[in-house]
Formats: sequence, structure tokens, C-alpha cells
Amino acid sequence: MSYPFSELIAVAHAMADAARAAILPHFRTDTLTAENKAADGFDPVTIADRAAEQAMRAVLARMRPADAVLGEEYGALPGTSGLTWVLDPIDGTRGFVAGTPTWGVLIGLSDDSGPILGMIDQPYIQERFWGAGEVARMRGPSGERDLATRAPRPLSEAVLFTTFPEVGTPHDRAGFEAVAHTVKLVRYGMDCYAYALVAAGQVDLVIEAGLNSYDIQGPIGVIEAAGGVVTDWSGGPAHEGGRVVAASHPDVHRAALDILAAHV
Amino acid sequence: MSYPFSELIAVAHAMADAARAAILPHFRTDTLTAENKAADGFDPVTIADRAAEQAMRAVLARMRPADAVLGEEYGALPGTSGLTWVLDPIDGTRGFVAGTPTWGVLIGLSDDSGPILGMIDQPYIQERFWGAGEVARMRGPSGERDLATRAPRPLSEAVLFTTFPEVGTPHDRAGFEAVAHTVKLVRYGMDCYAYALVAAGQVDLVIEAGLNSYDIQGPIGVIEAAGGVVTDWSGGPAHEGGRVVAASHPDVHRAALDILAAHV
Repeated sequence: MSYPFSELIAVAHAMADAARAAILPHFRTDTLTAENKAADGFDPVTIADRAAEQAMRAVLARMRPADAVLGEEYGALPGTSGLTWVLDPIDGTRGFVAGTPTWGVLIGLSDDSGPILGMIDQPYIQERFWGAGEVARMRGPSGERDLATRAPRPLSEAVLFTTFPEVGTPHDRAGFEAVAHTVKLVRYGMDCYAYALVAAGQVDLVIEAGLNSYDIQGPIGVIEAAGGVVTDWSGGPAHEGGRVVAASHPDVHRAALDILAAHV
Repeated sequence: MSYPFSELIAVAHAMADAARAAILPHFRTDTLTAENKAADGFDPVTIADRAAEQAMRAVLARMRPADAVLGEEYGALPGTSGLTWVLDPIDGTRGFVAGTPTWGVLIGLSDDSGPILGMIDQPYIQERFWGAGEVARMRGPSGERDLATRAPRPLSEAVLFTTFPEVGTPHDRAGFEAVAHTVKLVRYGMDCYAYALVAAGQVDLVIEAGLNSYDIQGPIGVIEAAGGVVTDWSGGPAHEGGRVVAASHPDVHRAALDILAAHV
């Protein structure tokens, strides 16, 4: 199916601009407080998460009133167009409340088949990654350029990112560790920024578990437009969340799935 | 002892500017290659590390020729002033080669007693943190402001950063885990950026092990000027490296040392 991608990308930019303006006044302020959404553990939500999702929903109400919306903080709003915007106003709120620069605003747009557009925005760095149709681009401190994933390489030469040890069950973690032991370099703690690095050709693999749809639909849209592959650990669709493997190339993806097969 | 801090801070800015100019042309380029310095594992060094240290040494040769220099890549150069500049041109080279924005340029200046000035620079974000004498400042995407560490709080409310699991022995890690189990939030993988977040009042604790002097002298200078405390796990000086605990406040520091005492 063909979509008006230029128009849809412009809507996503307007949403990400609105989210930036809503979030940055709260970032690294003394007055920022986090409520805990988790019964067990610490899953923070802040006024910035809520303000950013409201700001993005206001853009959609004005520019795309027939589309459905699914957001982390305010749930589902039905639509009539067959398209759904899937929003995580701050992916990596733990990092956000700790002042890191690697949380991000995630925007996905899906039809019945899955994501057709994705955007990852890092407001503090003023860095944005997006993909839809034939377009995969980034804009940041070094200017604007096309995105393309890395050339394939053996896992022994690959760079792997994850948010483990904090996300996933012990069984999930065993699968991650099995791949981690085969790669050259493992890095932790980058939240959604790790997916942006796959799209930007810096990283070969991201392996995670316990994700929600709003954690991954934006990254899927960016990475697939840049030439990568994102599935669940069995090779099926990942846009509903769960266990996710994002790879720079089908060969790298296949090599990771071969190892994860013992852990699905 | 009294030092001409304004002049010394200006020298450090000139060095960090030179390092930025040397590093950024190599960041996230297809042609960047990493040599492995480690016999066992992956301890990369790149042309950017070497170019940045050379650029900083050239600034010192011109502006501070009587000072000694100790750098990660080019070793020790003796001096006659009693002051030594301690340089890590890229702290977090693993993160650098993976494209993250949380590696940094570290500059320390020490006399016989330890660091008297420190600077942490993140070239890609264009963010810089420095401290010396009565001055503790940062400059970044949101402008320039004073640095001050957080007010003290119980460990159960604290945020802890580390680069574990990849740095330190299993014994070191057990000490870190003992503290990690008492705090509200643990984050990983920020390299030297975690120390900048302590100075900026975002984070309560950083606990690491296996550090070299050039990994920590810059952070010590920044954090102490901002009101924090940096020692080894026994409460002794940390500027020679090894096991390090950096805290926002003496009370937080003491609470962490009480737990680490079983692991020194």
C-alpha cells in the first residue's frame, strides 16, 4: 500500500518538536519528581512524560484527526483511517530522571501489517532519526545525513547492545548471554538510543525482552527504512513487543536467531 | 597552596577545544578502525585517541612548558613546576567505537597532594564540565551554569552508576552489588559521563574498580569542586586509580563505604 510519506514524516517532526518543547524544561531540574508505576521495583513516570504525550496528541488532533493513537501514558484512542500512531513520550525514563542523554521520544505509525514510519528523537542532544518508505535520515550536532545500517560481519566482529541486566526474566537473560559471549563488544544502558545506533550503521545488534509495543514500533520504522531487520526471537513480527532482536543485516539477524533458538 | 586557577582553567579549555577538533572528524565514520591493546579481551585504541592526546600535548608545550604530563597513550613527560597534567584523550573508547555520546575527554591537573583541577568534555554533545578552586561550571546545549552536587539522601533513595559488569574482578563486583541492592536505581554504561552527572547534581554515587589514574583525576577535580567526595573503597585517596567511589555528599559517601568495607 502507498502512503503520503512526506506528509506523514512532516507530522512526525511536528510531534517530536512539540515533545521536545514539553520535556526539556523539566530535564535535570531540581523540581523534577518521579512517581513509581511499578508495584515491585522502580518504573518512574514524570510530568515530562505526560506533558510530552499530551503535546503529541494535540498535534495529531489538529493534523491527523482520523488516525488512531496508542500512547504509553494515556492509552488507546480509536480512529477511522486504518493507521495508528504509537507513542512513547520518554523511552528510558529511568535514564531521564538520572540525567543521561540517551532516553528518547519514540513515534511509530502502523497499519494492519505493522510499522510504516518510525522516529527516535533525543531532545537534549537535539538529535533525531527517522524512516518511512524510501527515506531514512538523521539530523544532529554534525548536520543531516542519510541513515544506512552496517555491512554484515561475523558475530565475532559484532557490537551488541542491550538494557539487560534490568529488563527480562532469567531465561531471557540466558538467551542474551549466549549471543553476548560470541560478539566482540557488548554495551549497556543506552535505552532507545541503541536502536538509533543500529540505524546509523554503528551497531550490529540490539537484543532485549519484556518490551511493549510503544517501546519498539518507532525503532522498527527507523531501522527497517535504514536496511536493518527487527523481529522477535523466533523471527516473527516484533511490533507487539516482547522479546526483540534488531540487526543491521539479514545475515547478522540469522546468526543471532540461530543462537537464540535454544532460548525461545 | 594557591594557584592561578583562572589561567589554568583557560589552558584546560584550550586543550579540550583541541581534543574536540582532533576527535570529531573520526567519530561515527566508516573508516574508523580500532586496534586492540588487550592481550585478553577488547581494549580498543583509535587514531582519534592518539590525535587528541597529541593535540592536548601541543597546547601544553606552548602554554605550560614547565608542567609534567601523564597521558594514557603517550606516557609520562617530566616537568619542573610541581604540577602534572593527567590526560585521557578518550575515556570510554568502547563506547566511542560504538557511536555512543557518553565517552569523554578527561583532563586533570595535580600537585603532590592530588588533583587541583578537573575537566570532562563530551565533544559530540558539545557539553563540558570543569572545576578548580572555587569554580565548578558546565556548558552545554542548555547554556552555561554552576555545578553543585545533590543534597544528601538515604541510599534507598539514591541513584548509582557503574560500568560493571565489564570492569573489575568478581570480588570487586560483589562489593558493587552489595551497594546496588540498597539503592533505588542503578544505571550502566555511561563511562566518564556518570561522574559528570554526579557533579551536575543528577546522580548520588558512582562505584567502579580497575581504574587508572588518568581515568579518575579529571572527574575528581570536577566533583570535588562541585561539593562531592571521591575516594577509594577504604576512604583513602583515589587519584592513583583502582577501586573508586564518587559521592554527591559526605553522608552518602560514608553510607556507601560502610557497605563496601566488607569487600575491601
